[in-house]
Formats: sequence, C-alpha cells, structure tokens
Amino acid sequence: MRSTVHRFTLSDPGDVSPLAAAIDRGDLDPATIVAVIGKTPGNGLVNDYTRGYLTQSLALLIAERTGQTRHAVVERVPFIFSGGTEGVLTPHYTVLCVDDQGTPDGTPTLAIATAFTAPIPAADIGRRAQVLATAEAVRDAMRRARIESAADVHFVQVKGPCLTAAQIAEAKAAGVALASDNPDKSMAYSRVASAFGVALALGELSPEQIEETAFFRDFERYSGVASCSSGVEVQANEIVVLGNSRHWAGDYRIAHREMRDALDIGAIHAVLEDLGLRAAPQLDPPQQAQLAALFVKCEADRTGLIRGQPHTMLNDGDMNPQRHIRGALGAIVAAVTADTRAFVSGGAEHQGPDGGGLIAAIARKPRR
Amino acid sequence: MRSTVHRFTLSDPGDVSPLAAAIDRGDLDPATIVAVIGKTPGNGLVNDYTRGYLTQSLALLIAERTGQTRHAVVERVPFIFSGGTEGVLTPHYTVLCVDDQGTPDGTPTLAIATAFTAPIPAADIGRRAQVLATAEAVRDAMRRARIESAADVHFVQVKGPCLTAAQIAEAKAAGVALASDNPDKSMAYSRVASAFGVALALGELSPEQIEETAFFRDFERYSGVASCSSGVEVQANEIVVLGNSRHWAGDYRIAHREMRDALDIGAIHAVLEDLGLRAAPQLDPPQQAQLAALFVKCEADRTGLIRGQPHTMLNDGDMNPQRHIRGALGAIVAAVTADTRAFVSGGAEHQGPDGGGLIAAIARKPRR
Amino acid sequence: MRSTVHRFTLSDPGDVSPLAAAIDRGDLDPATIVAVIGKTPGNGLVNDYTRGYLTQSLALLIAERTGQTRHAVVERVPFIFSGGTEGVLTPHYTVLCVDDQGTPDGTPTLAIATAFTAPIPAADIGRRAQVLATAEAVRDAMRRARIESAADVHFVQVKGPCLTAAQIAEAKAAGVALASDNPDKSMAYSRVASAFGVALALGELSPEQIEETAFFRDFERYSGVASCSSGVEVQANEIVVLGNSRHWAGDYRIAHREMRDALDIGAIHAVLEDLGLRAAPQLDPPQQAQLAALFVKCEADRTGLIRGQPHTMLNDGDMNPQRHIRGALGAIVAAVTADTRAFVSGGAEHQGPDGGGLIAAIARKPRR
Amino acid sequence: MRSTVHRFTLSDPGDVSPLAAAIDRGDLDPATIVAVIGKTPGNGLVNDYTRGYLTQSLALLIAERTGQTRHAVVERVPFIFSGGTEGVLTPHYTVLCVDDQGTPDGTPTLAIATAFTAPIPAADIGRRAQVLATAEAVRDAMRRARIESAADVHFVQVKGPCLTAAQIAEAKAAGVALASDNPDKSMAYSRVASAFGVALALGELSPEQIEETAFFRDFERYSGVASCSSGVEVQANEIVVLGNSRHWAGDYRIAHREMRDALDIGAIHAVLEDLGLRAAPQLDPPQQAQLAALFVKCEADRTGLIRGQPHTMLNDGDMNPQRHIRGALGAIVAAVTADTRAFVSGGAEHQGPDGGGLIAAIARKPRR
Repeated sequence: MRSTVHRFTLSDPGDVSPLAAAIDRGDLDPATIVAVIGKTPGNGLVNDYTRGYLTQSLALLIAERTGQTRHAVVERVPFIFSGGTEGVLTPHYTVLCVDDQGTPDGTPTLAIATAFTAPIPAADIGRRAQVLATAEAVRDAMRRARIESAADVHFVQVKGPCLTAAQIAEAKAAGVALASDNPDKSMAYSRVASAFGVALALGELSPEQIEETAFFRDFERYSGVASCSSGVEVQANEIVVLGNSRHWAGDYRIAHREMRDALDIGAIHAVLEDLGLRAAPQLDPPQQAQLAALFVKCEADRTGLIRGQPHTMLNDGDMNPQRHIRGALGAIVAAVTADTRAFVSGGAEHQGPDGGGLIAAIARKPRR
Repeated sequence: MRSTVHRFTLSDPGDVSPLAAAIDRGDLDPATIVAVIGKTPGNGLVNDYTRGYLTQSLALLIAERTGQTRHAVVERVPFIFSGGTEGVLTPHYTVLCVDDQGTPDGTPTLAIATAFTAPIPAADIGRRAQVLATAEAVRDAMRRARIESAADVHFVQVKGPCLTAAQIAEAKAAGVALASDNPDKSMAYSRVASAFGVALALGELSPEQIEETAFFRDFERYSGVASCSSGVEVQANEIVVLGNSRHWAGDYRIAHREMRDALDIGAIHAVLEDLGLRAAPQLDPPQQAQLAALFVKCEADRTGLIRGQPHTMLNDGDMNPQRHIRGALGAIVAAVTADTRAFVSGGAEHQGPDGGGLIAAIARKPRR
Repeated sequence: MRSTVHRFTLSDPGDVSPLAAAIDRGDLDPATIVAVIGKTPGNGLVNDYTRGYLTQSLALLIAERTGQTRHAVVERVPFIFSGGTEGVLTPHYTVLCVDDQGTPDGTPTLAIATAFTAPIPAADIGRRAQVLATAEAVRDAMRRARIESAADVHFVQVKGPCLTAAQIAEAKAAGVALASDNPDKSMAYSRVASAFGVALALGELSPEQIEETAFFRDFERYSGVASCSSGVEVQANEIVVLGNSRHWAGDYRIAHREMRDALDIGAIHAVLEDLGLRAAPQLDPPQQAQLAALFVKCEADRTGLIRGQPHTMLNDGDMNPQRHIRGALGAIVAAVTADTRAFVSGGAEHQGPDGGGLIAAIARKPRR
Repeated sequence: MRSTVHRFTLSDPGDVSPLAAAIDRGDLDPATIVAVIGKTPGNGLVNDYTRGYLTQSLALLIAERTGQTRHAVVERVPFIFSGGTEGVLTPHYTVLCVDDQGTPDGTPTLAIATAFTAPIPAADIGRRAQVLATAEAVRDAMRRARIESAADVHFVQVKGPCLTAAQIAEAKAAGVALASDNPDKSMAYSRVASAFGVALALGELSPEQIEETAFFRDFERYSGVASCSSGVEVQANEIVVLGNSRHWAGDYRIAHREMRDALDIGAIHAVLEDLGLRAAPQLDPPQQAQLAALFVKCEADRTGLIRGQPHTMLNDGDMNPQRHIRGALGAIVAAVTADTRAFVSGGAEHQGPDGGGLIAAIARKPRR
C-alpha cells in the first residue's frame, strides 16, 4: 500500500474544480481517495452549513469521476471538515489516497486507514456507547493499516454526530434523557465521547477510566492524538487513523506533539523537528515545500487564564470561544510554517492537555 | 526627566483598583502620569464603549487622587485605548509617567512627550487639515522630549476623532461633504490622516507626498512608527511620542521594526533582539520580566492573500476584519514573548508596509 | 406621594446631558429620583459594559447635583439597564421619581417602590436563597408603596448579580458548587431565582412550588409581572415594584398583560386598551404622546418552533438568541405604538408563559 | 397558462426531501417549476454559502426527477435565495409553477414569467449596463406573461451577481475600475442597478433618470415593486416577474404596497386587504390558510433615525444592519399574519421609499 497526500485551496464550498483539474491531469486517481480532511469558511458552529455543502460537492465530483453513486461515495469516504478559518487561515482540504503503487523503503512511512461506526442513536451521543463504538473502530483501522503499535499512531481524526434542536425536542417529547438538551453543548459531548474512544483504543486510558462522570471534569484523562469534531451532517462516527508503518510505500511520514497551552510554540518547533524541518524562526521555502499537511486541535483555556493572565474568550457574547482560539492557534502555526493552510479545529476537550491541545504534521521525507 | 512604565491588567473598564492600589502603595505618583495606552475588552469598532468607560474611570481616579478636576485630567493626559482583545490577548493598560527623579546614564533611554491638536471639525476629519495639525503636534512633542533625531522616534500613538452617524446626518443636511458618509469608514480616514501627519513630521514623507488622493491608494507612502486609532470619544488628535534620548533618566528603552506581512515573525524576534532579548523560540522567564510593553499595529491584507494563499477576513459578515487580524497578530506576538498583555491594534492603513504593520517594544535595559 | 415618569434618549452611555438639562430646567428634582430603567446599546450579554458605564455616568451626575457621594447614590437608586437595542429599538432610560407634591384623585395611580436585598454570595446566585431574599424585598416594597393587593402590581423589575469567570474559577478552586459553571448560564439562573421570588411574593406560586428542581423545567411556574435581568455590575438584587394605588397622586397609571408567544400582538393591543389607548393598527400621535414607558420581557421559544414553524434563534453561532428575540419583539411593539423607546429584555425564563413573556405599559391618564 | 404556488419549510440547505415528497405525491410536476424564491439560514452577507448550497441541492433533485442535467436546470430556473432568518423567521422556499391546466376565470390571476440576462461582466456590475440589461429582460418577461400593464406588475425579484475579493484583485491588477472595490459594497451596487432596471422597464423612472450618479444619492428614484438581491453564486441577472393577468388560470392573485418606513404596519394591513384578508390585529386561521407567500424588502434607515428617534443598526460592529432590519420587519409581518414563513430581504436601496421598502403578498382568491 502507498499513501499520497494532496492539498487544495478552497474558494467556495460549491467549487471543487481544483480537485477536478488534478484528477483530469492524472495527479490522482479518484478511486484511490480514502479520506478528505479540511477547513471550510463557515463559523464552525451548529449552523455552519459549509461542511455539508463541501461534502455534497466533493461527493458529486467523485461519484461522477468514478461512476459510483453519491451515496456509495459518502458511505466509503470520510469527509471531515471543520468550519472556521479565522484570522490568517485558508479554507482548504487535504485528500488522502491509498493505492498499490511503489515499494516500502523500510523507513516509517505514512499509513492511513478509515473506519465507520454504525449510526449513533441520539440517546447514545456523548455517552459510553459512543466511546466503545469509537474504540472498536480505531482498533480495526490500525489492524487494517498494519500500524504495529499505538506509539506509531500520530493522529486520529473523528467526526461524530451531534444533536439538532429537532432531535432534542423529539427526545423531550418522548421522555428520553439526552447527554445535553443544548445543540451547541451536544457538539462538545460528541467530541468528548470520541476522544475517550480513541484514548481507550490506544491504551492512553484504561477501560476503568472510561466514565461519563469524567467527561468535562477530569481533564487529566485525554488522548494525545485524537482530534474530534462533530456536526449535524453525519450520523455515525467517521474515523481516519494516521500513523507510520514500515509496511507502506510513499514519500510521507507523520509526527505529533501535545501542546501544553495556547502559547506552546515550542511544540510546533518540536513536531517540525521530528520531521527533519527546522524553523528559525520560520521554515524557509524549501522546507515549506516539504510540509504536506498540518493539524491542530486547541481550546480556549477554561480557567479564563493563560500564563496567569486573563483572556476574554469565554465571556464574549459576539464571538464564540472557538472562533477566538482557532484564529489564535492558526496564526501561531502559520507564522512558524509560513503556511496558512493548517487544519485548526477548536473543541479540544480531552484531546491533549487541558487548555492546550495537540499538533500533528505530515511532511515529505527528507532527501537522503 | 525620568520615564517609568507601569502595566495593569484590566478586569472591567469600571474597575481601576489595581492602579489605585499602586498609587496607594507609592509605586507611582498620579501627578506624574502623562499618558495611558491600553486594550479594552470591547469589539474595537464604532460601537465600542469600553474605551470611553475606562477613560471615565481612570480620569475619575486620577482626579480624586490629584485633586484636579476630571476635566483637567482629560485635557492633560491622553487616554488611548484600542478595543478588542481577541484570542489570547489580555485587557490591560500601560501607564507612562514622567518625573524629575534620577540621573541620565548617558545611554539611549525612553523619552516620552504628549501633544494635543485643537479639536478637529467633522469636515476636516480624514483630510489634509488633520495631517498638518498632527505633524505640527508631533514635532512639538519631539522638541519638548529632547529627542534629537527622527531616527530616535520608535512609536507615535495617535488617537483621533471619527464621525458619528449624527454628525454625518448633520453634514448631509447642511450640504457639507465629509471624507466619508460611513461611520466605520470614517474611522479609517481619521487613522490615515494621522499616519500621514506622523510621516510628515518625521520626514518619512515629503510635503509633496501629502495628498488626499494617495489615501487608501498609494500604500508605499506610510509611516513606520505611527500607530493611529480613532473613536467617537475624542474631538482632537491626542498624540504620544515615544523614543530614546540620552537626556533622560530611567531604566527603559524602546525599539521598533516594520512588519512585512501578517506572518512576519522575524520582525518580532528582531525588535526583541534590538532590546537585548532573545526568543528561542520564546522568551524565558527572566527575559519576560524585562519586557515592559509591546505595541503592534496590523491589518488584514487587502489583496485577500497572505503568502499567496487566500484568507477570509475581508468577506466575513459576522466578524469584522479587525477582530480577525488582532486575534492573529496578538497570538503570534504572545507566543514569542509568553506575554498576552500586548497592545495590538488593527487599522494599519499607511502604518507600516501594506498588509503588514509595525511592532514596538519597551524593555528594561539589561544589567551591565 | 406623587409619581412622575421621565424618558430620555441615550446617544452614548457616557453622555447623560439630556437628564442634566432636564434637571437644570427644573423638570425634575434629582433628589426625587428613585429608580432608572433603561436600554443601553451593548450586546446585552456577559461582556456588555454599557450597563455599568451608564450607571457610572448617571451616578456621577446625580451625586454632583444632589451633593451625595456616588456611593450613596448607587446604594439608594436601582439603576436597571438591559443591553441590546437590536433592530428598530432606541437606547433610552426612564427615570422614575417620587415626591410629595399633588393630591390623589382617587383613581388608580402609578405607585413606585424600590428595595435592595443584601448582597447575594456567589454560592446563592440562582438558588432558593436568592428566591427568598427577593420575595421578602418585594413584599416590603409593596407595603411601603401602599399597593393594597397583588393584583395591583403590574411590573416588578429585578436586577440580580451573575457569576463571573473569576468567581467560577475561585469556587472551583475552593470546591464550592455553584448553580452553573458557565457565566452566560449563570445570568439565566439569577433571573430565574428572581422570578420565583417575585411569584412567591405575589402569590403566583405557593411556598411549596419554590423548588430548584423546577428551574428551567416546569415552565408552568412563572410570574406574570416579573422582569428579571442580571449582570456583573450588581452584587445584590435591586428591585423596582410598579403598581397602581389610590393613595398616590400623579398623572400616570400602569397595566400589564402576559404574552402567549412571540407573535402575540393581541397582548400589545390589550395592554394599551387597558390604559385607554387604541391602536388601529398603530397609535395615532395624540395617543403616542400619552404613552410614557413600555416594558417587554421575551424569550426565544425553546422548542425551536413558533406557531408550528421552526425558527433559527437557538442554533445561530453568530447571534445570541437574546439578540434575535429582542429585535423581533422590539419591532412588533414599536410598530403598534409608533415608539421605538421600548424596554425589551430577553431572558424571560419563568417570566410570563414559556416561549412568550409579558408586557407592561405606563400611560398618562386620559383627560376626563 | 396556470400558476401554482407551493411553500416548503427548510430544515437544512442540503435537505430538500419535502419537495421530493411533494413531487412523489404528485402535488407538483417538477417539469413545471419556473422559479424558486426562498430564505436560507445563513447570515445573508457575502460569505453566506447557504444560498449556493440550497441551489445545488434543488438543482440536483429537479435534474434527477426531470431527467435534465443539473446545468440545464440552473440555466432554466431562477433560484433566488436571500440568506438570514433573524428573529422569528423560518427558512423556507416558495416554488412557483406554470402549467397548461385549468381555464381562466376572467379575474386578475397570478401571472409568472422569468428572464435571464446575459452574464454581467465584473466591470458592468453596479453600472448602467446592468440597468439596461435588466430593463430589457423585465419587459420581455411581461410580454411573455401577457401582463398587460405596468400597474399589473406587483413584484419583480432580481438576483444579480456581485464582486468577489478575487475579481476585485484581478481588476485592480488589470487597472480596471469597478463600481466598488469592496465585496460587501458591490452587493449593494448590483442591487441598485437591478432596481433601476426594473423601474425603467415599468416606467417608474424615465430613461433620463437612469444615471449612475443617482445611485445611493437620489432616493426619490426608486421602484415600488423591485426586490433585488445579489450574491457570488450567479453570473447573470435572474429575474422573476409576478403580476396579475386575466389570461391566466389558477387560484392565486398578488398585491403589493410600498412601506414608508420600518414601522409602517399600515402597509401590511393594506396589502392583505387588497387580497381580501383582514388582520384584527392578526389574521385568523382560515385567513392564514389563504395566504400563500409574502415578500418584504426593507432597509435600515440611513439617517440613523426612525420616527425621529435614533436606532443603532448602522453603528453595530457585531451585527450587520441587514441582520437587524430583517429581524425587525420579519417580526412585524409575522405578528400580523401569524406566519413566520416570510421572504424578508434587506438591502432595499432604491426599492421602495428610502428607509422603508415594499411588501407583496400572494393569496388564494376568496371563495365566491
């Protein structure tokens, strides 16, 4: 198996012509696309329809070019989009492909596997049931990707369902207790259950540590590689596992680091160095060309403080905390890499250290 | 003359108790306060009343402690506040004091002078008349501060008036043409006229280059040290000139750099190095303690591109571009300095290179 | 006792010159001011500082004109401001005065009394303790106002404290459980406890019905005359009771109606008719001149539906539901009255029927 | 020719299942759809992608059900969506169909015709060329709809292109002067050119009155029936002309009124009365069932005043004026009709009286 990584700038969620052109040029075979991860230009909150729009646009294109139905494409390929390109960030999407070309060179090489859980019923969203389904799917993906140890997993992206106002009303009428009766809050619950699922699969948390009472409470329990989103546009957990494996062919490898807090610029330098890149204080153009994709998960510190000083993100009635923190982390990362096409996603509860988060990057292997 | 710099975190624009406590402790004499520059927690746009609120609160306190009237305090002390602490930024204010203590040590030392123009009539806001009045006031301030050359000026903060909806309606009724009939746009016009005024005073622009037709058009004409704000709460241009002079006593000195674009992290490192501080990639705690104040002026690139990639700041109907860019630059600066108390102000038209801006920092002199 | 009502348009929370002019003209004696209720131009959410700013400005003015200290003024006069003048609404404030002029004419006449509870500790905000303190204060106010029966009470405005991020962090550190660990949500808890307090005082709810478990759950338990706000700027519940009494002199009387839902335009017509005013479909200019003040409390329907059709207020990540609903109700009321100076306040949990709210109006008595 | 009107509530721009179900039930033949006008749940500003998303979803559905290509559907059917369902408004879309069933009853009956101009080049957007192209297309549509006089035209909906940041950058690079170099402002220019085009076609303005210098200046020049939108998702002006004609069969007729200002509730009553409906003060359920569609165009008064009192819509940095005014007018209309499914669109420059706008309604003819 060979992995390839293709990144496209997005001008409008209805316009996927850059990918179409790449397919037309033969740069990539649409049948080999296994996952798409990207940033869309919406607000990244419950009423962000740019994620669904881009999904529809991409599914249409891939269906046309492969002869599959749109439905079949959506069933097979996780489309994982985080809305919100605050500040310097660029809407874009990274297309991950797997084919059977090339020969492994024996070094750690990017390995990719995807998995889908069964649809999560409204009553299970943000609950233990979602945790267990996620863990099972992650383990299955690792096995299929021939990633040998949990330490070789560097990024697990999960997109899970959240509750709509309609579902909440329905449950209330039916007397069913949901994890939350607030759509916005349900997005957080879904992310947390997914994160616990990844942590369980990778041994970051023991089965005993999987307790709903720890959700939003015991932030020492986290996954250092889980990046979890949620949105009304999916019904099941869609999972993409990225790691390194010597069994794969291809030019790419991946690394990750935890971020201690929102100012942990050292973690950015460290993950780049893990990949042979050195920012001084910014990557130079040849190094920029090596960087293939970068993923950040972050969170507005819930204590209201960063390095002992107050921030205003949690009190702002006009701008959601996630819009604040994405803009902040996106800028720091872009300043170090000179690249604004970073996947920066908010809502990092139990994903990396509390008040911080995590960063993963994919780069071409250095020439030897 | 001796300069001192005092920085206070702001929890609420109605609460100036930290300054009151510092006065009570004898840390600073309220009669020596010559200017206050700060960030308030509003949106930083036309309807941001946190600037006026903090001004009222501080003027009340200083009046009470000095026995002056509130009116006299406001006439004497420029209170220059920029709203908007997006992302990691901390609301705070920096109190600049001048007294007659100490002896000059013969090295370049922070020199401070303030100046006020006459009230700017609505018809002159954003016009040549505002440019000339500003230039005159800057030159006068330099003279009084004994700053010997324009090269020794590192930061000129100007706060000028903008047009309210009421003034615009009045002018329309009277048939008077204003620089703009849009309150938000008038804020920009005021900033630009102030910036041209600073550039004229410092010889960055020649008298021939002062043309209204160049406003918002010829962005090669700029000041590398002007930081201009505007707001409904002032009627005249209020100016604070900061530079270095061997005639001053005190522990502080100042430096500045232009920023080429929003990702110019190199400029941040450079200005710190000018002051003997080295971020690798972040200031360490002893160096953090030396940093006394940091000022950034920045702008969402009007081409819609940063390093060749699109950003969404100019198209976002929910978040003003200034909220985006302040959050981005604030985060980059804070990541390098480990300090979230930066004055980061948007609206940098003709203040530093287009699409970039400028940065100035005050630090304690290194121990010798 | 005689009641008078004075309404002033607000151009800026720092500018109280219209009230100053009225005092100077002798229109009102500042010593007779017993309460001020108004709408300020902020966002009406946790980080709305326009309420505190206007309070500071008014307290300063009244202190100057009465010779009292600012502190004494704030201790005596409830300043109750709701932020957010969305849509057609006009920032304004209504000054309520009580003096000993005039003679009762024997008809029901506007009676006013204010009351303050003791400061509410953070742990009591949104709890039964706040309910009981509020009820006690309301009963005391009625007694002092000589309002003979609960049926004569038409509007009880309460402003209570809410939790700040700092208080929440402190409580968490101290292991103290608060009603909510979310500042925005704490505003709602404070309003609910106040509303239950009013309902208890007026016999709308029995003592047995005062249960914390009913908060946000049993919306059949409500007060039809309570209008509760909350904000960081007060530490105690500040209460203004408005009713009719034959023992009062003055030209004004008050009426109220419950609103069934957000489209209950019939309630607006009804409350006007109670006061002898008839909108067909809008008040005519002579009737407009009779209307002295109008108060609305409203809420975005939590079912997500209005008359069976979905609304989007609860899902909007860019605009808080309260900004939506205030703009909607403000417009309906203004269209019927031809007057944009309505006090329209969101957050009507347990204040009027769920999904609706209540309306109260003060008008001059018709000439006989 | 027979006209029919079908209204569907929208839960998500990617979900057009209610229309699909109606087609499946035989309620409407997809081949007879001539236009769709609707409200989507975005912010209604430049970065509102919900309009394009719904267009893609509907075009896909209609293409599948008619056997046409998506491209052919979009070429034939104007999809005219206004984003922004602030306050009580419900996202929905009205499908207008024309078939050859039925016989005219000789009374004025809803007549529908659509027209498309050629694509408008970026340089012509907001210019005289767009005016003339629009006028020509409107006249052509009237002719084809057999609407005999301009007085029988009650609503002309136009959706025109606006400028993107990319187009503006391109024009600047090419030295081409555009109507505006601000994307948001270009939306307004496009609307104004379209409105002048409608007014020219209907004789509301003479050819001499079509001057670019009058745009945004002489607001006495307006169309009383034009409702113009703009967005990045169209390249040509797409036009829907609605009027009455005795040559048509069908159960519906249409009426319209100008609105003097934002509080002109009388105009709402009047347009309903024109259709035989009487709100007292609200339509009763049988009358509600007769109302088939309602269209409002409105504008935040640019003087900053409504009935002599200030509003804050033009100064609000957090909420665009169009979000404010749509929420206000939507609420007033819904309160009178008891129906939240109104098409309320902002940006009414030169569309109805300045500061006001216009209202049109379609209702079933009363039973005789």
